[in-house]
Amino acid sequence: MKLGDGVEQAIHSISMMSSLTEGGVLSAASLAEFHGVSTSYLLKHLQALSSARLVETVSGPKGGYRLAKKPAEITLLDIVLAVEGPAPAFRCAEIRQRGPNPLPGRYFTKPCGINAAMLKAEKAYRAELAKVTIADILADLGATDDGGIAARGCAFLEINERRTAR
Amino acid sequence: MKLGDGVEQAIHSISMMSSLTEGGVLSAASLAEFHGVSTSYLLKHLQALSSARLVETVSGPKGGYRLAKKPAEITLLDIVLAVEGPAPAFRCAEIRQRGPNPLPGRYFTKPCGINAAMLKAEKAYRAELAKVTIADILADLGATDDGGIAARGCAFLEINERRTAR
Repeated sequence: MKLGDGVEQAIHSISMMSSLTEGGVLSAASLAEFHGVSTSYLLKHLQALSSARLVETVSGPKGGYRLAKKPAEITLLDIVLAVEGPAPAFRCAEIRQRGPNPLPGRYFTKPCGINAAMLKAEKAYRAELAKVTIADILADLGATDDGGIAARGCAFLEINERRTAR
Repeated sequence: MKLGDGVEQAIHSISMMSSLTEGGVLSAASLAEFHGVSTSYLLKHLQALSSARLVETVSGPKGGYRLAKKPAEITLLDIVLAVEGPAPAFRCAEIRQRGPNPLPGRYFTKPCGINAAMLKAEKAYRAELAKVTIADILADLGATDDGGIAARGCAFLEINERRTAR
């Protein structure tokens, strides 16, 4: 089982956007540079976050991205589903229906027990992710920061935040 | 997030092996034919199950695969980890340490809160999968079967089971 790199990039980018001032936006290029990742790759994930209405896109030469919701309203689950898509990790290919001697269709009206058990586990996974918001992540970070992390973020925003009319 | 097709194939193959008689084995080719999947692909997964000591390999022209443990001792988690590997779904690339203005190393002695939250969710996922054994899957199947599923399995084993000295 594997989540793409985009999840980490999306969570960090949204965390950074949480510190923007009213009307401020960040370009994909500046977020990519800060995190040392490819701009084109990050753009794809920012577009996914935009489609899921977690971030807003402001167009134009001074455009960029900002949060569409408060950090306390964005959960890790929202971000994982936006970037990875809504399909469950276990995608039943119904191999029980294949082969040279398949059973009649009446046996396949319900999902098989294997699929049901795998989906139940995924439900537990998603429930845990739904409990954690970006506000929680930032509060945890703040609790362990001696000032250095905040100072780095502020220095980045000082240089890269673009002011737009909100 | 995605699990490979191998997980479904491995669970179904192990379920089928649960019905072998003492000393019986099944070839990869027969399991692949029954499930309508590629033999070479299934072989890879059977080898992973063998490395994880969930199945045993009997070599020779009449060789094949059989369970190395009782169905009640094999959980869905065992199979998922055998086929997909032990790495967690979220693989932190530590992008917080990248970019042109990284923080000093002393900030990175602990996993970041994002990684910790993602791993906590995966722990919940794995705990659910660890609760379900192949014996549970078979019991559920038996409870809903009017005889047709068992008859199909028996017909397959009647033709394909290879008897070896155990």
